[in-house]
Formats: sequence, C-alpha cells, structure tokens
Amino acid sequence: MAVLSTATVRFGDAVYRHRLQEAAREAADRSVDALLVTPSQDYAYLLGYHAPNLERLTCLILPARGIPTLVLPRLEEPLARHAMGSLADELQLVPWDETEDPFRSVPALLEADTRRVGVQDQMWARFVLRLRAALDPIELVEAGPTLSALRRVKSPEEVDRLRGAARSADIAMAAITAERLSGRTEREVGARILDLLLSAGHESAGFAIVASGPNSASPHHEAGDRQIAPGDALVLDMGGVRDSYCSDTTRTAFVGEPPPEFLRLYEVLQEAQAAACAAVAPGVAARDVDAAARQIIADAGYGDAFIHRTGHGIGMDTHEEPYIVESNDEPLRPGHAFSVEPGIYLAGRWGARIEDIVVCTDDGAEVLNRSSRDLYLVE
Amino acid sequence: MAVLSTATVRFGDAVYRHRLQEAAREAADRSVDALLVTPSQDYAYLLGYHAPNLERLTCLILPARGIPTLVLPRLEEPLARHAMGSLADELQLVPWDETEDPFRSVPALLEADTRRVGVQDQMWARFVLRLRAALDPIELVEAGPTLSALRRVKSPEEVDRLRGAARSADIAMAAITAERLSGRTEREVGARILDLLLSAGHESAGFAIVASGPNSASPHHEAGDRQIAPGDALVLDMGGVRDSYCSDTTRTAFVGEPPPEFLRLYEVLQEAQAAACAAVAPGVAARDVDAAARQIIADAGYGDAFIHRTGHGIGMDTHEEPYIVESNDEPLRPGHAFSVEPGIYLAGRWGARIEDIVVCTDDGAEVLNRSSRDLYLVE
Repeated sequence: MAVLSTATVRFGDAVYRHRLQEAAREAADRSVDALLVTPSQDYAYLLGYHAPNLERLTCLILPARGIPTLVLPRLEEPLARHAMGSLADELQLVPWDETEDPFRSVPALLEADTRRVGVQDQMWARFVLRLRAALDPIELVEAGPTLSALRRVKSPEEVDRLRGAARSADIAMAAITAERLSGRTEREVGARILDLLLSAGHESAGFAIVASGPNSASPHHEAGDRQIAPGDALVLDMGGVRDSYCSDTTRTAFVGEPPPEFLRLYEVLQEAQAAACAAVAPGVAARDVDAAARQIIADAGYGDAFIHRTGHGIGMDTHEEPYIVESNDEPLRPGHAFSVEPGIYLAGRWGARIEDIVVCTDDGAEVLNRSSRDLYLVE
Repeated sequence: MAVLSTATVRFGDAVYRHRLQEAAREAADRSVDALLVTPSQDYAYLLGYHAPNLERLTCLILPARGIPTLVLPRLEEPLARHAMGSLADELQLVPWDETEDPFRSVPALLEADTRRVGVQDQMWARFVLRLRAALDPIELVEAGPTLSALRRVKSPEEVDRLRGAARSADIAMAAITAERLSGRTEREVGARILDLLLSAGHESAGFAIVASGPNSASPHHEAGDRQIAPGDALVLDMGGVRDSYCSDTTRTAFVGEPPPEFLRLYEVLQEAQAAACAAVAPGVAARDVDAAARQIIADAGYGDAFIHRTGHGIGMDTHEEPYIVESNDEPLRPGHAFSVEPGIYLAGRWGARIEDIVVCTDDGAEVLNRSSRDLYLVE
C-alpha cells in the first residue's frame, strides 16, 4: 500500500466553500455543465487537501448548479472526511468498493440534461478514455480555462504564501552563492541546494538546476557529474514548496574573473530582466512583458540566444497560467503572479538567466525575490 | 524555470533498444499502429530517463513499424540527448519552439495508414483532448495493456533492483521498530521513517503511513498530530525508490501489552498473509492469491474487516500491473512482482496489516522483504 503525502496547509473552510461556488459559476458562464476533477493541484485548490493520485478513481463532480459529489475508493473515505473537516458535510460522498467499476456510477451522478463536462487538465488518459466511453454522447472539454480563471488571480492570503516561499528561496540562494563552489560537482551543489531549501522553511525541495561552464547554455540542464571550475559561468535555478505554494528563482554566478564578453552579455540580460519587471502593470498584455525583455536582448544582438518564453504563472503549481509568452495577448490583472526570467544561451560556451517571481498589483510589479540580481562572483 | 529530477539509474543502451522493439511488437500484435508516450514511468522505462512532465508537450511516438520519433520542446533537446546517450541517434528528434503548436506536427509524424493509437495511461487530459482533435478520425485507445505487457514481467536485472529496494526498506523498518515510539506524534515518526529510508539507500523516500490507535483502522491514514500511547495498535507502511525501483512494506506493532483479542486478530492476519504468499506460483490466477488470504480472514469472522484487495504489482511505479484482486483472473508468470498485504480493520478500535513484496518464480514466491512478520512489541 502506498499513499503520497496529502498534507496541505489549509486556509479556513469558508475559503474552499467560496472556491467551489466560484468554480461552479465559472463553469456555468462557459456553458460547462459540470467539472470532473481528479487529484491534482486543482483538486487541492478546491477541497483543501491532496488525495492520492493512483489507479483507483477519485473524482470531484462539481455541477454548474447543484451539490458537489466526491466519488472515491471506500478505503480513502476516512482520510477524505478527516482532511476536509466541516466541508465534507456539504458534499455528497460516493465511496466505491474494490470490485466495483466506478466509471459506471459517474453518469447517474450528473444532472440529466448534462451536455458538456470539463475534465481536469492533468486527469490521467486512462480515466479520460473510460469516462468518455461511460458518458457518451456527453462532450468532454478541458476544465483548464474554467479553473485557471480562478487560480490565476491570487488572493492577498495566497500572495502572502508566495512571498514566504520566495523569501525562503532567497535565503537558500544567498547561502549557496556564499559557499566555495569550485571543485564540487554540479550534483553535489544541487543536493546542497535542496538541503538549503528545506532548512530555509520549504516543506519540499522541488528542484535545483546547477548548470556550469558549457552546461549553462542548456536552460533545463540536469545537475550532473561535471566538476565546477574557475572560468565557469554558473546558472543556479531552484525552487520548492512552502505552505503549499511554490518558489522558483534563478541567479547567475561566475567562478573567478569573468571575461569582458560575459560581463557585457550579463549586463544586457540584467537590463532586459529589469525592463520586463518594469513593464508589468494592470491592463498590459502578457506578451508585452515578454517583448520588453526580448527587445533589449535582440537589440544587443543576442535575439537567437533567448530561446524560451520570459515566464510562467506560479502558485500551487510551479507552472500555471498566465504564461508570459509572445502568443499570449491576455491583459495582466492585479493578483497575477508569474516568473520573469529571460536568459541568454550561447551553445558550447556559456549562458545566464535571472529569475524573479513578481505579482501584478495596482501599482505595477511587486517583485517577491529580494536577493541581489548582480552577477555573483564565486570561488 | 523548473525541472523535476530526471535522474534514473540506467541499464545499458541495449536494454532500451530492446524495449522499444518489444513495445512496437506488442503494439502491432494488438492492432495499435503507434504509441504516444508522454513523460511517465513508461517513458523512463522505454528511454531510460525522465523528461519534465509539464505543460510543454514532450511525446515519444513509437510506431508499430518504423523509426521512433521524439517530439520535445527545443530547450529540452540538450538534456534529452545527454540523457539518452547513443540511443538518441536511433530516434528522430523533432524539437518545437515556444511559439509553435506542437499538436499540429503530430499527425504528419504518424504513418499515413494509422487508424488506432495508444495513449500513455497517465498522459494529461489536456494533451489527450488536443491530440484527439488533431488526430481525428484516428481512434485513441489506452496504451496501458501494451506497455504493461512488457513492464509486468521483470527481468532478472529488474528483480535485483526490487530486491535492493526491499532490503533497504527492511533496514528502515528494523530501525524504527527498535525505537521508543510512545509519546511521539505520528507525524514525527513518519518524518523519522522518511529519514531512515534515505539513510538506508533510497534515492527518494516516497511515503510513510503511521496509523496509531483507532487510526490504524484506516488503511490510507495520513500521519497526523495524534500522539502514540500505550495500548495503541500501530500500522507502519513505508516505501520509496532505490535505483529507480520501488519498495513498499508494512509491519504492525503494538505499544505495550496487546490484549488477547488483538493477538487473535493478528494471528489470523499472519496466517492469511503467509497463505497468500504460499499460493503464488506460475499459472495460479491473481484472484486465487487474493482468495487464499480472504478465505482465512473470512473463516475467522473478519471478512467485512478486510476492505481492500490483497496487493498490487510493483516496479518503477509503486502501483502497477498485476493487481491481486478478486476481479483479476490473469495467471501469474515468473517475473511478476507484487505486494501481498492483507489487513484487518475494526473501525474506531484498531487495525493491522502485513505487507511483503514477492516475485513469482518457477518455484513459487520469492519473498523479497525479510524483516520479521511477527507483531512488534514496542514501547
């Protein structure tokens, strides 16, 4: 038997009651008659706890109008009731036994006139295909737009959580950039960063990218056996979860004396990152934040070397809406939280990236990360 | 930017070459023209590395006949090439840029006469729905049966990995049951178990169920704030990953002097668990292993208190095929690896479970876990 941690740091029950109502309203507005939400961050956002996401079907059925139903394996029922507190009394719980087929019960749990249901973005394909067969001819659509309409706008309490997570990551970043890194492998430094994230208050240390020398030109490089050495550029990208909300920050270091060419590249990058942060304001399109960074990098002749979008939304998921990318013309709103992380990568040589989490406020960007954005000179 | 660890402990490249061929052959046998495999344990099983499973599409297209193609975000390409070694040269890599729609390129990458494709079991719903739209009228079916036909039969090298993981879990179990547990909270003991799993050689500590007193009657209880006290039954269920393969074991303890009624219950359980292990042999149906345990428990009057199946397959996933459940008449084969974990749960009072990982061999079950199955008497 196995169960992943279901720990979430809950807000009050009223928060989840409100979110369920808002999600139902959003669904109705989009002519989606019900949402089917399997264990995921969406599920935890709506119910305040994580259910095990395994081969047994657990599914919240949230009708646009009516009482929500939770279909779950019978052996999960005590855990669900315990985790949800008083909220459990406002849902219809439908436990199923090991030898039952839970997919056969879902159709009867939907309103008779249901024509379109939204399935949670990360629902497993096996569930999607079985639900499609069980629900035919009901149309299945993505629940993502409905749920992210709620989740992309953070409440002040959520921003507080993001602020705490960012500060914790800043502490870990300050600690690792103060250490001697030369002579250690990327993997060793990566493991050390994960420890630092935990000691700085993260409940889980999600990832640490340690990309040294030519590896720094690979944005998603995995920390490997390469030994860090003088003359290396070093991209340090880390994040984890604190109080159920994610951190994600990147700083660039140089081991020893950086050559003028790298300093010039870094100066361009730093200017681009600051310009993108400065561009953030309510009503500004996400793509314009991307363009603010991209223009400066392109003007300096590095346009082809900035090979990814400028940022991604962040919250309970490390990557969520809104994405700060050329194709997104969505206007920013107060409460949007996302990374601003341009990078410049010269294959085979070196790379650099600076990443902050920012929140759009009425007055522009609140930049949550506070560690220095200057190039870190390390030994 | 964020990337989860892509570390896998690889076998040689020849292993993955062989698996890709076998998966293609299995697909052909099932009239599945291609498999679409997004990052998952299936993906790691076939390619030997984990790709980040995020909102950007990474998808192995494995045709029943022809050369496999890997569609991936351009910024993942260096990581993929690095991780796959010489295997990368045998695949067609199709990187896509941030502003492209990768779903539009998939249809052209399939053979012209493709009629059915299998989608990986855990593929995200958003990808399933977009692929369905892009591939219409090609039929989407579950890839699970095709891939689990391979994965459910472990090679000797895989059994070695499972053996190592089980031994590590045994070490952690021996350590925790030798400690004083009374006066500590479930959560504290759970955190201690995770530490012990890591120090015993797991690369990740997956979970620790610590269910004390009345909580021991909830099979998936989450370790909480309850303080362990004399008179408590205590179910300890733990597992993690070592060398990319999973461990999962459960033992039951009692704090102080167990009452005769609990001892009788435990004796029944121990007999049932041993009988289920003894029933394992090639050709025996999975359901008969379940029945061997269930019959003994029912005969003793606890039939309604054994509220879950007897076991689940295990390998790179903690839960995979074959499931040891009443509805599964599949005959066991040498190389099948699964848990044998009957339990007896009396709501509001106490519960007990014993779990071993076993491998079906020509000579019956090899029981990988070696710690004592007797009731642990702890302070």
